[in-house]
Amino acid sequence: MNMSLQTHQPIEGVYLCDQLDLPEIFGTAMSHLPGLRVLKPSEVTDPANVRFALAWRPSPDAFDAYPNIELVQVIAAGVDPVLKTPSLPHDAVVTRVHDPEQAAIMAGFAAWQVVWHHRNMGAYLDAASRADWTRVLIKTLRPPSQVTVGLLGFGYMGRAIAETVRTMGFPIVAATRSDGPAERGITRIAGPDAVTQVAAKSDILINVLPLTDDTRDILAAPLFAQMPKHAALIQLGRGEHLIEDDLLAALDNGHLSGASLDVFRQEPLPPEHPFWAHPKIVITPHEASVTSPSAVAHALAQSVREMTEGRHPTTAIDKKSGY
Amino acid sequence: MNMSLQTHQPIEGVYLCDQLDLPEIFGTAMSHLPGLRVLKPSEVTDPANVRFALAWRPSPDAFDAYPNIELVQVIAAGVDPVLKTPSLPHDAVVTRVHDPEQAAIMAGFAAWQVVWHHRNMGAYLDAASRADWTRVLIKTLRPPSQVTVGLLGFGYMGRAIAETVRTMGFPIVAATRSDGPAERGITRIAGPDAVTQVAAKSDILINVLPLTDDTRDILAAPLFAQMPKHAALIQLGRGEHLIEDDLLAALDNGHLSGASLDVFRQEPLPPEHPFWAHPKIVITPHEASVTSPSAVAHALAQSVREMTEGRHPTTAIDKKSGY
Repeated sequence: MNMSLQTHQPIEGVYLCDQLDLPEIFGTAMSHLPGLRVLKPSEVTDPANVRFALAWRPSPDAFDAYPNIELVQVIAAGVDPVLKTPSLPHDAVVTRVHDPEQAAIMAGFAAWQVVWHHRNMGAYLDAASRADWTRVLIKTLRPPSQVTVGLLGFGYMGRAIAETVRTMGFPIVAATRSDGPAERGITRIAGPDAVTQVAAKSDILINVLPLTDDTRDILAAPLFAQMPKHAALIQLGRGEHLIEDDLLAALDNGHLSGASLDVFRQEPLPPEHPFWAHPKIVITPHEASVTSPSAVAHALAQSVREMTEGRHPTTAIDKKSGY
Repeated sequence: MNMSLQTHQPIEGVYLCDQLDLPEIFGTAMSHLPGLRVLKPSEVTDPANVRFALAWRPSPDAFDAYPNIELVQVIAAGVDPVLKTPSLPHDAVVTRVHDPEQAAIMAGFAAWQVVWHHRNMGAYLDAASRADWTRVLIKTLRPPSQVTVGLLGFGYMGRAIAETVRTMGFPIVAATRSDGPAERGITRIAGPDAVTQVAAKSDILINVLPLTDDTRDILAAPLFAQMPKHAALIQLGRGEHLIEDDLLAALDNGHLSGASLDVFRQEPLPPEHPFWAHPKIVITPHEASVTSPSAVAHALAQSVREMTEGRHPTTAIDKKSGY
């Protein structure tokens, strides 16, 4: 960025989002950033002065009005809704948020879902609603050492989930981009076949892949067929990863034992969708995790600072790979 | 033990339990122990030959028939039901099970209950039952870094729970017998006032104390009054730790936001007990964790081996302190 934080004129940016009220959510946190000013589109007086955007699901032509945007700070870890925006300037750097707290929240949520399936916690809730004291554990429990948890996606979120789940005694297999150092309790599988191999070993499979052309529709009948009988799926990636009818078929024919779904092809999930009432599905409204406004403000300040210093931002994504 | 594993005669022991069918649960695992033979009371031909017991909630006079019991291996981590048995020989060594897998199972269970209260997961289940997609997180979430999880009990189980819960971003305070080295994310509090101090800091309080004269009835109105408003209780210790009416009062007057209870003064919990239908209480039937038969067999073999070698068993408890 060729403007400096040292000038008296603040660097101007704009909120770009079709679905969330970003100024309402982030306004207070952004007001504390020295040298930066983030404006609603209606507040912009000279669009040529806007050098960055704070964005989430912008409208297709959202960027057209601003010829000088150099940086697009996404408010979350996943950048696909911004990358697919047709008006996104080719040469703009896109950065995301690496928020340790968000990763910890995600890890807690994933751990909850793992235990839900491992321990059949729903049956306890049902039994309690009937005042039914029936002990089942000593006869039914699979020791966690014999229950493999698979991770599709081993980036910032996947690692945090693995850290938590392995402390609960589950061996972990993770599909990774490349081989890495061996770690206690975590087996990495790399290569073009990694996703299939991980699914084949997973009694509980967690998806936190980024959405790219390679991963779209990946949670589908062929992958489910590879999974062990009675395996469970925890879907925390993107709705477009999942072929919904294939999941319903795999649950209804008994091959999969359950699914926890946080993301959907259509959000909000329509009231008439068969997922809602399915007895083997746990639904949450795309809230597995959340970034705090202060973490987003911190990420934006860091990205701007790195660019004004002529450096490539730490959290910049590779537009070609999509993450 | 003055018999040696090297003799051809196996060392004899006896199952002693009033409530569980120990031979049914543990028989197969015990049959694989070389040099040991564990018998039902009805199978004992010469009671003087019985040198050890495998025990859980024995009848008050259970030990009277066996004059030469030197070792009592308890099948679990908590030994209070055996210690209070009037016929327990004064000079018998009492050992428990240190099963890493049991601790991991306990950690997963505790983590699930922590997330249940932190994220109000029950509200998601309710909303899903109504096909209600309402997002609340960005407005309601307390970041885990601002939610302190307290541990009453920092022994084998408490440590395992702390390991898991801290990876989910929660700061931990633990009441401990003595000061210890500082650890990332864990604050120890020792001394006579430790339990009260920990409760006063805990947004979510987990009890895994052993049951002793000092800890009986400890979860009661005075302790609840110390806890922050809207704190939650996760009770995984012993039923006798809790004054049940005090908990109901603290929930009903709104001071505590919820409770997860796995242990009760009377088990099975009677069908008419008010806990069952209470909207703020999650009940499980004393199944937070379980020891596998193979882990119990391993623990017994180790205790016998240590005693035949003239050593004090690693997992022997201090009868005076009760744990």
